[in-house]
Amino acid sequence: MNSNFKKLFDLNKSNQTFESLERLLFWDQETMMPKNGINIKTLQKKELASLIHSKKTSKEYKEALLKLIDIDSGQILDKDLDIDQKRCVEVMRSDYQKAVKLPNSFVSKMAEVSSEATHTWIEAKEKNDFAMLEPHLQSVIDLMREKADHLGYEDHPYDALVNEYEPHMTVKTLDNLFNPLKESLSNLTKKCAKNRADDSFLYGVFDTDTQLEIGKKLLLEMGLEEGNYRLDLSAHPFCMPVHANDLRLTTRIEDSSFHQCLSATMHEGGHALYEQGILADQFGLPIGQNASIGVHESQSKFWETFIGQSLPFLKGFYPKLQSAFPKQLGNTPLSDYYEAVNLVQPSLIRIHADEVTYGLHVILRYEIEKAFVEGKMKVKDLPEVWNEKMEKYLGMSPHTNREGCLQDIHWPSAHFGYFPTYALGNLYAAQLFNEMKTDHPDYELKLENCEYLFIKKWLEEKVHQHGRRYDPQDLIEKATGKKLSSDAFTKYLESKYTK
Amino acid sequence: MNSNFKKLFDLNKSNQTFESLERLLFWDQETMMPKNGINIKTLQKKELASLIHSKKTSKEYKEALLKLIDIDSGQILDKDLDIDQKRCVEVMRSDYQKAVKLPNSFVSKMAEVSSEATHTWIEAKEKNDFAMLEPHLQSVIDLMREKADHLGYEDHPYDALVNEYEPHMTVKTLDNLFNPLKESLSNLTKKCAKNRADDSFLYGVFDTDTQLEIGKKLLLEMGLEEGNYRLDLSAHPFCMPVHANDLRLTTRIEDSSFHQCLSATMHEGGHALYEQGILADQFGLPIGQNASIGVHESQSKFWETFIGQSLPFLKGFYPKLQSAFPKQLGNTPLSDYYEAVNLVQPSLIRIHADEVTYGLHVILRYEIEKAFVEGKMKVKDLPEVWNEKMEKYLGMSPHTNREGCLQDIHWPSAHFGYFPTYALGNLYAAQLFNEMKTDHPDYELKLENCEYLFIKKWLEEKVHQHGRRYDPQDLIEKATGKKLSSDAFTKYLESKYTK
Repeated sequence: MNSNFKKLFDLNKSNQTFESLERLLFWDQETMMPKNGINIKTLQKKELASLIHSKKTSKEYKEALLKLIDIDSGQILDKDLDIDQKRCVEVMRSDYQKAVKLPNSFVSKMAEVSSEATHTWIEAKEKNDFAMLEPHLQSVIDLMREKADHLGYEDHPYDALVNEYEPHMTVKTLDNLFNPLKESLSNLTKKCAKNRADDSFLYGVFDTDTQLEIGKKLLLEMGLEEGNYRLDLSAHPFCMPVHANDLRLTTRIEDSSFHQCLSATMHEGGHALYEQGILADQFGLPIGQNASIGVHESQSKFWETFIGQSLPFLKGFYPKLQSAFPKQLGNTPLSDYYEAVNLVQPSLIRIHADEVTYGLHVILRYEIEKAFVEGKMKVKDLPEVWNEKMEKYLGMSPHTNREGCLQDIHWPSAHFGYFPTYALGNLYAAQLFNEMKTDHPDYELKLENCEYLFIKKWLEEKVHQHGRRYDPQDLIEKATGKKLSSDAFTKYLESKYTK
Repeated sequence: MNSNFKKLFDLNKSNQTFESLERLLFWDQETMMPKNGINIKTLQKKELASLIHSKKTSKEYKEALLKLIDIDSGQILDKDLDIDQKRCVEVMRSDYQKAVKLPNSFVSKMAEVSSEATHTWIEAKEKNDFAMLEPHLQSVIDLMREKADHLGYEDHPYDALVNEYEPHMTVKTLDNLFNPLKESLSNLTKKCAKNRADDSFLYGVFDTDTQLEIGKKLLLEMGLEEGNYRLDLSAHPFCMPVHANDLRLTTRIEDSSFHQCLSATMHEGGHALYEQGILADQFGLPIGQNASIGVHESQSKFWETFIGQSLPFLKGFYPKLQSAFPKQLGNTPLSDYYEAVNLVQPSLIRIHADEVTYGLHVILRYEIEKAFVEGKMKVKDLPEVWNEKMEKYLGMSPHTNREGCLQDIHWPSAHFGYFPTYALGNLYAAQLFNEMKTDHPDYELKLENCEYLFIKKWLEEKVHQHGRRYDPQDLIEKATGKKLSSDAFTKYLESKYTK
């Protein structure tokens, strides 16, 4: 490695080390922190956000970058770089250009405002009190609009925000993907409404420790390495990758549905496998980072639904569940279990939604946040607009804001532009799933035999190991030979649910 | 608050926020981190150490300080400061003067070398392989000697190191305190050797959850607030105060002695109450920091031994233990329990030692580390010197280095100068204990009635609330009306153990 590249690598590694601390803090807050620790946690987050931004935009960083690339023109100046190094330098330049557009005072204010808004949101949700959140949400939206202006955009201010999570994604592309998707999901939901499977046996008391044990064992079978992760419980399941070798997963146990724990564990396991598959020795370089949140979500959805809710997987795995819970499942045949966990049914809560209606929840949020960013919608109208759209897309609307527009953390925590990645994840995953089937014609037999490592290896080769080597849409096209569209996902759902 | 003082306050608060992250990382590593997380943890620690040092020695910090105090002469320049603010500025000046003496490269090397040495130590201890640790320990000692040279000293290089934990403490004072103490502890140990109480009933299986439950309840009764802390298990118990409102305690369960868990919980509870008692709104100022490690240790020892192993406390508390463990303790009278938990008996492991022999373990380590820092002792001779001193002071020597010179984390983790604070803690605590008894003549009755809050309040008033308002020895003198000496502690032990 030449010394100029090494210098930039080291600076980047230092920045990413502090970013790994941000992720640890998030995990700690959600799982371990004593309640009163919130004030010091907010301070820690604010200080870290400001520090990281200062480091990313420092004179030292700029000078290191300028030895390798002309920041204005993008011309590579160092002839010794190999192809991966060139890509890294280009990505670092683009990251730098974005970072310098945001004033440090803005970054630190953003961290503070969103931490306070999130904290208020918890109480507002608990009390079902939208008015309590309103002024905080207004502040966040004002800052989001300011952020879009700082970052700049060609067509639409929302483009600037969604790019934070999904590079090169635009409102134009999203509309082109989501408009037909919305229609086909609506139609399919209506079609499925006739099949009302009995899933009552999923509701009841299933021993918590046994559920966690099953989950942990499955994670190892999926290919997660023992010393690389831990699994805890939290209100909302997540995977926080402090580092490829330090993955913090959570799942949830809900009396209201047994399958939630397993499903969340596989979902977060998919995220964790992605991070584990990123080359740890590239930590500090873009090649050592995930490609995008959408690609991340494709990995979790791949495992959670395309594999975990498939018949071949359950053929192999369901008998294990039955022997762990003979009283609850012993007399329920596989076919009933399969029908129950794949029940399509409009519901109020996104994170509980099935594969078909899930996308409608996401599109609803996308449309609303886009309107906020455009300045076309007022915060006070949120409950009304939310409920109208719910009625229109899902044929039902919530009686309380708690089950409506207060349900998600994303807006108070200033993650505008994040929601579409959930739907993109499904589109990517469907394309990957088709390609995996082509490469492994015997995949059903393997799943029936509880073999999962081949999937991990395939995803590692096609996705994980590349890090940010390619832009997300290019990565998926290279992996699947097809341009991004909603076709594969729609066909997958139609074939699964209209059989 | 005037704007110059506010500026310095804010800078200091930022530094201390990053220091709070260091403490969180320590806790995480010892309790939660997946095994393979060690590499990113080492990186995080190194980056943080270097950052904090840079911030503490920055031009910006110096300029802020110079608006309030002449750094060279120590003359206060701002006439508006009140007495506490003056003290804060003086302490910040002294901290600054120390910090600038250490090159940043040294600080970051120290963090790296000690992290690696600590990591090696874990394996070396496990394998009882001193040779494995030797080169690492040598590197640490070289750096410690270098550190003393950087910091400077009047009489003895060790003074520079011990001052990191106990301001204004010197080898001269320590020798004056420890030489008579060593003699009296040795004599008392010999005297106590005759009384061989039966403590066999403490060894056996006591349900872990019940032990933890008892500990948590006791912590609340001692005055710790529910939302301010958590209690976990770790190999060595500790209390890591991320902040006054975010205290991370650990305890241990050992089949080899039931009392260890309760005793460790009270010990760490004492540390936690100290930090909780420091004024949270002063976070960022010296008044909002603990006075020294010795004073900290006085708080933990106060609760663990002066209270927790006293007859009046056990009169009130032991019946609770009996009803929690009727099978194991139901037929054991209080007097037997009291004798058993206060059994004086030379042993190999410091952290298991009783009140009397504990000081000898500490003095042994003090003498050895002093010799290392003086350059009078070679690392390869450590096992031999250790065993000789053990034989001399405690009449027994270990068969393995694991039970000997490899038992403590302090040296590999570069905490030279730390050990004396354990003994100082006992001396401070004994003086405080006498004063508390004077102020609360009915204290025995209260303890028998399981009332403990009066102790918390007394310690808060006398010690906690002052933070670093006074130097440690002044603080204790103000609290007890007496200069620091080993008299109170020696008398306390003699009266307790020769009755």
